[in-house]
Amino acid sequence: MKKYKVGMIGLGTVGTGVYKTLLSSEDIEIKKIVVKNINKKRDIANFDESILTTDAYEVINDPEIDILVEVIGGVEPAWEYISGAIKNGKHIVTANKELLAKKGEELFNLAESNNRVVLYEAAIAGGIPLIMPMKTIMAGNKISQIRGILNGTTNYILTKMDIDGASYDDVLREAQELGYAETDPTGDVEGFDAMYKITTLSTIAFGSRVKLENVYREGITKVRAEDMKKANELGYKIKLIALGNLDENGKADVRVHPMLVKKTSSLAHVDYVTNSVYLKGFPMGEIAFTGPGAGEFPTASSVVGDIINIVAELKHSDYILPMMRCNHDHNAETIDISDTYNKYYLSITAPNNIGVIGKIGNVCAERNISLSTILQKGLSEDNTADITIITEVCKEADIQSAIRELSECTIDSLIRVEG
Amino acid sequence: MKKYKVGMIGLGTVGTGVYKTLLSSEDIEIKKIVVKNINKKRDIANFDESILTTDAYEVINDPEIDILVEVIGGVEPAWEYISGAIKNGKHIVTANKELLAKKGEELFNLAESNNRVVLYEAAIAGGIPLIMPMKTIMAGNKISQIRGILNGTTNYILTKMDIDGASYDDVLREAQELGYAETDPTGDVEGFDAMYKITTLSTIAFGSRVKLENVYREGITKVRAEDMKKANELGYKIKLIALGNLDENGKADVRVHPMLVKKTSSLAHVDYVTNSVYLKGFPMGEIAFTGPGAGEFPTASSVVGDIINIVAELKHSDYILPMMRCNHDHNAETIDISDTYNKYYLSITAPNNIGVIGKIGNVCAERNISLSTILQKGLSEDNTADITIITEVCKEADIQSAIRELSECTIDSLIRVEG
Repeated sequence: MKKYKVGMIGLGTVGTGVYKTLLSSEDIEIKKIVVKNINKKRDIANFDESILTTDAYEVINDPEIDILVEVIGGVEPAWEYISGAIKNGKHIVTANKELLAKKGEELFNLAESNNRVVLYEAAIAGGIPLIMPMKTIMAGNKISQIRGILNGTTNYILTKMDIDGASYDDVLREAQELGYAETDPTGDVEGFDAMYKITTLSTIAFGSRVKLENVYREGITKVRAEDMKKANELGYKIKLIALGNLDENGKADVRVHPMLVKKTSSLAHVDYVTNSVYLKGFPMGEIAFTGPGAGEFPTASSVVGDIINIVAELKHSDYILPMMRCNHDHNAETIDISDTYNKYYLSITAPNNIGVIGKIGNVCAERNISLSTILQKGLSEDNTADITIITEVCKEADIQSAIRELSECTIDSLIRVEG
Repeated sequence: MKKYKVGMIGLGTVGTGVYKTLLSSEDIEIKKIVVKNINKKRDIANFDESILTTDAYEVINDPEIDILVEVIGGVEPAWEYISGAIKNGKHIVTANKELLAKKGEELFNLAESNNRVVLYEAAIAGGIPLIMPMKTIMAGNKISQIRGILNGTTNYILTKMDIDGASYDDVLREAQELGYAETDPTGDVEGFDAMYKITTLSTIAFGSRVKLENVYREGITKVRAEDMKKANELGYKIKLIALGNLDENGKADVRVHPMLVKKTSSLAHVDYVTNSVYLKGFPMGEIAFTGPGAGEFPTASSVVGDIINIVAELKHSDYILPMMRCNHDHNAETIDISDTYNKYYLSITAPNNIGVIGKIGNVCAERNISLSTILQKGLSEDNTADITIITEVCKEADIQSAIRELSECTIDSLIRVEG
């Protein structure tokens, strides 16, 4: 049987999982792997180190290699390697969510003009099948909403904060010690990772290219243990939610931010590093996909799945996987966060001037903001009042203007609320 | 643009959804639809009745038709029509779970020898993408377990019994009035529908053909309101669960029966007509798919998805969708229900002879059956005792032998317990 040849760039967690999974393949062989350090000890039994190289061009320029697998992440040098490989006739499998979000248009145009495919199931939600189902069997749908938990690190931190009542800083430190968060956690905790993912998912779902600069992003670093506690008392959990909505006019509202979700909703029970994505569309209705969002083996499952599908079609045709190609030739119109409508949770420290609740009420009323919950529990030692508010649905610009008007109060937290 | 032609057999709920969804397609046209009654009033605006026919061979023998969509269900005449269409060079899209479970081997052999594909996303779990993901992006996995709620009608009945505390008969009548259950509900309530689905899912997942006669089946007709109530008190819900397990020796244990599932588990919260399927595999881990398991539009989404994928590949190749073909050339070895290991819930009416609890204890102990829960609440007016037991994991043959030995007791219910 002919063996199709794979060249891989990167042999970290995911790359190692891919290598181990493909060892038993009858028709796919990993011919070369590009690494930074050839002498690094690898967690692979009987590993043949002769397939390692530090020179990416040994893969890119090898005419025997059919598929380039890129699992190093980041824009450069990944883009240089991938674009070079496409020009040399190789199909691409990548787990690189940042590259997709920042270079998607160039990447898919280059692939299409070279009749090559770029698959990236592993880039979003690890082992959960999402890209291939969306592009194939769900293709007859008009998808209008994506909601999900797309980042395992932040979901782990929020779950631990909730269960232990611990502070963000304490849980982050623990997560770093356990390897669930990186030494520099910015990409995860500031919401960049989830932003890259929802940008690409929205582009697929809505059939027009969503630009990264039009995606609103807020991380979890300002979520306080007190917010967790109050949310719980009010019947909510706090989750980092990635959202994509398409309105009736075809405008996309795409964002990542913490959100209060009702304890009775399924997303509230997606804990630790699990990911979950809800897709709403017509005619299919709402479908949920839940599973491991990261990790050596789940992510390898998606990379290997992409490779197997490329090889299966290469055996029969030179023009492969028509449904998996990118067909977006225009950019999505988007809605600015200030024009969106949401419910809001506000935690306010107010000077105990008589009439502060009255002023809050008036400032909101002037902007047509209805309040569904107001909680004030006694006065603190320094004579300030701790007030918690949940609003009805109102415009983001209005709530921001109300906050500016309440200059004598300190807004400790503003978190959007589901529903 | 060339229009690919579809012939459809059946224009009931699903067929109508398919027709409406494809109306806006640029490259797919429904050319003819076979119905029993041409004059029936259809819920379709501006419907062109000239495409209707009562003669299936007008579709089967039409050389212009590329794809036959079969949405009538049942083995005959569906098998006659489908096999005829394959021999005439048509690809098949079907929602017929019974035909797949009973005629799968012949069907896929016939299709393969004619270089035609048979797609059936709609046959299992309605709008939930399951078959295509399993056969494509999850192809690198060894799947060892399927657990799920695959029948909307029975899940609706069990949910209503649980919420209203009502009897099976009362809820069934209500479900029939609302159109959630058929006039003859046997196919759903006796577990046949779920059995057909888990048979096909297990065949795909385990990579060997599971025969229908080796699948254990038990419906929900014997589940009593009292069992629901007791299960609730003990921290469980009762659901009709479809299971497929592959053991270390490659033997498949495939079955459908009511089951007590912990209230804390996700499956316990899958209510009314929602379906949910959990797939456990390596390297992917466990992935859950949840969504609408039936209905005009969700099911149409899957039928239309299959059609779109066939057409997309037909444009480029004569040998299409290699991953979607059936590659099972051997039958699965299976495990008889009597050789499986489970926990059991037993509701027993015992004569109030002194020592009956002792006898139950001894009969179980002799068979190495440990009891984790024993509940007896007072004595009833006729001086019998109502005893509820949950066992630890034990062999099915042993629990059945214990029941035979307890001949002086009436076993009101035996329901298997998750875990």
